[in-house]
Amino acid sequence: MTTIAIIGASGYAGATLAKLIATDDSLTLGGLYVSEASADAGTPLSVLYPEMLGLVDQPLQGLSAEALQQLCQNHQGVCLATEHQVSATLVPTLLEAGLSVFDLSGGHRFKDAAIYPEFYGFEHPHPEHLLQAEYGLVDWYPHTLNKSKLIAVPGCYPTASLLALKPLQQAGLLSESAMPVINAVSGVSGAGRKAQLNTHFCQVSLTPYGVLGHRHQPEIETYLGHPVVFTPHLGNFKRGILATIVCQLKAGITDSEIAEAYAVYQGNAGVKLLPQGSWPKVDDVAGSGRCLLAWKFDAGKQTLVVASAIDNLMKGAASQALDCINIHFGHEVYS
Amino acid sequence: MTTIAIIGASGYAGATLAKLIATDDSLTLGGLYVSEASADAGTPLSVLYPEMLGLVDQPLQGLSAEALQQLCQNHQGVCLATEHQVSATLVPTLLEAGLSVFDLSGGHRFKDAAIYPEFYGFEHPHPEHLLQAEYGLVDWYPHTLNKSKLIAVPGCYPTASLLALKPLQQAGLLSESAMPVINAVSGVSGAGRKAQLNTHFCQVSLTPYGVLGHRHQPEIETYLGHPVVFTPHLGNFKRGILATIVCQLKAGITDSEIAEAYAVYQGNAGVKLLPQGSWPKVDDVAGSGRCLLAWKFDAGKQTLVVASAIDNLMKGAASQALDCINIHFGHEVYS
Amino acid sequence: MTTIAIIGASGYAGATLAKLIATDDSLTLGGLYVSEASADAGTPLSVLYPEMLGLVDQPLQGLSAEALQQLCQNHQGVCLATEHQVSATLVPTLLEAGLSVFDLSGGHRFKDAAIYPEFYGFEHPHPEHLLQAEYGLVDWYPHTLNKSKLIAVPGCYPTASLLALKPLQQAGLLSESAMPVINAVSGVSGAGRKAQLNTHFCQVSLTPYGVLGHRHQPEIETYLGHPVVFTPHLGNFKRGILATIVCQLKAGITDSEIAEAYAVYQGNAGVKLLPQGSWPKVDDVAGSGRCLLAWKFDAGKQTLVVASAIDNLMKGAASQALDCINIHFGHEVYS
Amino acid sequence: MTTIAIIGASGYAGATLAKLIATDDSLTLGGLYVSEASADAGTPLSVLYPEMLGLVDQPLQGLSAEALQQLCQNHQGVCLATEHQVSATLVPTLLEAGLSVFDLSGGHRFKDAAIYPEFYGFEHPHPEHLLQAEYGLVDWYPHTLNKSKLIAVPGCYPTASLLALKPLQQAGLLSESAMPVINAVSGVSGAGRKAQLNTHFCQVSLTPYGVLGHRHQPEIETYLGHPVVFTPHLGNFKRGILATIVCQLKAGITDSEIAEAYAVYQGNAGVKLLPQGSWPKVDDVAGSGRCLLAWKFDAGKQTLVVASAIDNLMKGAASQALDCINIHFGHEVYS
Repeated sequence: MTTIAIIGASGYAGATLAKLIATDDSLTLGGLYVSEASADAGTPLSVLYPEMLGLVDQPLQGLSAEALQQLCQNHQGVCLATEHQVSATLVPTLLEAGLSVFDLSGGHRFKDAAIYPEFYGFEHPHPEHLLQAEYGLVDWYPHTLNKSKLIAVPGCYPTASLLALKPLQQAGLLSESAMPVINAVSGVSGAGRKAQLNTHFCQVSLTPYGVLGHRHQPEIETYLGHPVVFTPHLGNFKRGILATIVCQLKAGITDSEIAEAYAVYQGNAGVKLLPQGSWPKVDDVAGSGRCLLAWKFDAGKQTLVVASAIDNLMKGAASQALDCINIHFGHEVYS
Repeated sequence: MTTIAIIGASGYAGATLAKLIATDDSLTLGGLYVSEASADAGTPLSVLYPEMLGLVDQPLQGLSAEALQQLCQNHQGVCLATEHQVSATLVPTLLEAGLSVFDLSGGHRFKDAAIYPEFYGFEHPHPEHLLQAEYGLVDWYPHTLNKSKLIAVPGCYPTASLLALKPLQQAGLLSESAMPVINAVSGVSGAGRKAQLNTHFCQVSLTPYGVLGHRHQPEIETYLGHPVVFTPHLGNFKRGILATIVCQLKAGITDSEIAEAYAVYQGNAGVKLLPQGSWPKVDDVAGSGRCLLAWKFDAGKQTLVVASAIDNLMKGAASQALDCINIHFGHEVYS
Repeated sequence: MTTIAIIGASGYAGATLAKLIATDDSLTLGGLYVSEASADAGTPLSVLYPEMLGLVDQPLQGLSAEALQQLCQNHQGVCLATEHQVSATLVPTLLEAGLSVFDLSGGHRFKDAAIYPEFYGFEHPHPEHLLQAEYGLVDWYPHTLNKSKLIAVPGCYPTASLLALKPLQQAGLLSESAMPVINAVSGVSGAGRKAQLNTHFCQVSLTPYGVLGHRHQPEIETYLGHPVVFTPHLGNFKRGILATIVCQLKAGITDSEIAEAYAVYQGNAGVKLLPQGSWPKVDDVAGSGRCLLAWKFDAGKQTLVVASAIDNLMKGAASQALDCINIHFGHEVYS
Repeated sequence: MTTIAIIGASGYAGATLAKLIATDDSLTLGGLYVSEASADAGTPLSVLYPEMLGLVDQPLQGLSAEALQQLCQNHQGVCLATEHQVSATLVPTLLEAGLSVFDLSGGHRFKDAAIYPEFYGFEHPHPEHLLQAEYGLVDWYPHTLNKSKLIAVPGCYPTASLLALKPLQQAGLLSESAMPVINAVSGVSGAGRKAQLNTHFCQVSLTPYGVLGHRHQPEIETYLGHPVVFTPHLGNFKRGILATIVCQLKAGITDSEIAEAYAVYQGNAGVKLLPQGSWPKVDDVAGSGRCLLAWKFDAGKQTLVVASAIDNLMKGAASQALDCINIHFGHEVYS
């Protein structure tokens, strides 16, 4: 049994991951940590999340220097469900202690440190670790996940977008002169558990945000290898992401070439193509670790529409992290 | 034209009232105030509420001593959509300046000052004004609203509950040995606009709160003249209250006596009885200033069920305040 | 492995149960049936429910005479997620064939056949089977579930209500002169999957229905052994039930006697008491097979408020049916 | 006073329009009609819509031949909130009788009759009336609305899309080699009041539909004069549309040219530009007759994102119809 700690366990992604680890046959849930100053320190996770009563009753611990030292001694792996900058700061200590680190933040998703000041608002303190990190998009890069002790778990929008677009890019179908237009809507849990006016129940209603400047745009472009226009939206639901993507394909492409490109997912329990004519709904994936895809092509306009749905807290965070952990440690993976 | 100021205009009730006053033919919307320290000071109300763009574009003003003085000089009336204790503190100055005061908080709803420490958590600083205030339940006490310069606008749950129960009490139908059981669900706007974890979109889901101790219980009991059991709930919608009330009636009461009791509302545009067999939905009253009522009686069990629906921000706050203002100043009232 | 068929598998309860059986270690999911005339016959369940893609892909079969015969030959048990009257009609054939029958409808929940014409609108065709059926409230009657081949799986509202009230009744705490007042709100899935105006997204909004005449009232009274007032409501959410119950207790009862009554659930993974001061939310149980309970007592008024939350499709239907099946066949039960 | 009838008054758009006409100072609400076979014939509109109790209590009438004759005699105008084909069939009789006809269906929005078999599934029975109809996009074509007795009230998605795109097209800013990508989400009321599985509360969840083939695509292209890619979605809310549009602009365009293009709406109460940095929410326009617009431009990529929000039942149907009526008859218009 591999014992895994979680730092940032009180948030939605961290808590979801705690539940997944607690019920995974190959893993043991170790310590659950919050920042030392957090008002939640000392509180059982199941008090914050009554659905976990009897499942994850252990208390959240403040991450004091001493607690960090014990964490390093008692675990084989640690998940960071923390702010980007906090992750960037914590990683050296954790790696030095020999732990495998699974960073759910954006703190290690780029080789290019210049992205941090522009899109994340801080200078990355350890660019050398950026070079070491592997990007944990498990359906595309499973074989790299035991090559490094630092795994950057992908963002939620990038996961939904890349699973839809990479087959097209890999098959060489995307027009080089046009940018795929990604229009995505996320449930409110994507904004985190902190009390803020914009997540107040009465303020939430479908709206765009982060237009032409969201930090997931460079992440998608980096791992797709193609520029895109990405417009995220906040939707009036708790969990899930729907990305609707409009692409121009090269001249002469046919439906069967597209079908062949998506055949890369055949037999993959984690990514499912819907039958032609069906389109995914957000609630079809809520609570699940899968991605549902569907597409339609207008050959006359050379226009392809692809829709991709995932649960932002699962495939977009916790269940993908779990898959990263199990692949990294050589355990069996169930999606 | 009567000019009315609003203190606490950035909150849901205050902003709703601003819009109502701005579009009322007999009233002029005067100054809009927030506490001096508020981050919203200086911001046009329509920036906080884009639905008001072009309708209420005037800026919110911090309530400095100077601003208060100008408020007193330039208005005939003032509405307080403030914390209970803030209302209790402000009222003397406003009354002294000769203004008519319409207090939407709970700061002046009781003659008995002892209720404040027990249910509101503070000693009332001016019990003498409690004696002076009239309770603005407009469908029951319209004739008292020009008898005082201090009107206590009723709470949202009490409005829904009293409109359902007072006809029964007035007709002497309620069993004296049983307490009506009021089960009520409010939309999240009832919890105010402040960012708090319990109003976070992802935390909201139907649940009871304030069980056997909510401050609206004594308000209902006071103006009904009968003890009740009141259980409020938070519901996953923005606006509206549904109160479902189960009462034991005296022996031998018939359907026609109940119908006769509710006939008190005949011709009242603000309170409507639904046809037998229909029940009100919260969305039937969202955005409206009315109360919808329906009832059914089981003569064998002497049990009456009454349902009452209002919009908590309208009949439960702003539109009832508007009615209070117009009645007080002798204007025509539209519901 | 015990093989279980489901009749009525296209509805919400039936489909939920199909998924539970398909992933249960002791059971094999057999045939999935719909009425012979159903437009869904021939369609894989996962086409109706894309979340089941790759999990339950077998097609729904029309229940022809021939299909019924094969069903009887190839299964050890059968679940009926059918209309009450259809269940009542099917049961004799199924029992004769030697199958264990788990009826999720209300077709066999009463010994007294007179309840059917009054509350269900039909004369029960086989009153002799009513006498044979055991009531599958698993947390209270586990030892009877292998005593009969006909198990009446409880209704959703009765499950939520009885789990809250039976400890009080068993401990003799309920006042004999007052009826517990049960106010319950169900998610829309409780109304079934049929397209109807009242379940149209735009028509749904919190409202009472079935007031003073719902068929779950006699079910609660029968298994509680005490009259109640039961008022169901439709809420604007998909899954879950919250029942808020106000009871008068006998004179002199104390908090510790109430706590002792509820201690009956100690160690029961399927029914959890929340810590004092916490109240269950509908979303705390959505997707789970548990019941969450909380209570508060006002000794002065002898008034107890209990809240009970379950998922109407799980503890209120499918997961309770699964527990019935596993207990009946002597398998291990996980909640 | 101009008296206006409504055919198809039981649906969401028709009923909303009935309420608007009933409270309009220049208009009298005449007869309310449903198809002769409708189960709603004889029922007061306020029984279907309790929010209209006391406001629109007149009964719906079945549209028999006799009723149609009386309609023609007693009204100056008639609104058609009917199926496209029904509108196309009714119009000749109504025009012959001298009435002004305001068709909210898609039955008269195209000059080109060939669009009907392809996108509407029927041969248009009266192509001559297509040539006569004026397109009632009131913010763009107010001066044509008294030029014809047949006004085609625009579709909901086209209204939201055209108000966002026409300023760019008119100013010559759109790149000629790229299609604007319109991604729009509509509330469920857009699907009409008929009970259908896809509008069942439990089935509704954000999803695309009508991909690359929706009938509003040719409507947008026709009145924009530019091809587009249009992808509609169903969202989990009752009212409102948000269209997020990504356009490529010609080389060298600047922010100020875009601002100048949108200045066409200056002083227009029906279309409001939000301050830079703000984005419209669906709920900002729910219940209102306005369009809220916002945009952001990335000069490097020559990419413009525009968001447009309207209430699909108001600006997208009933309130735009009301404006058409008032402009047509020379009355004053309030938005």
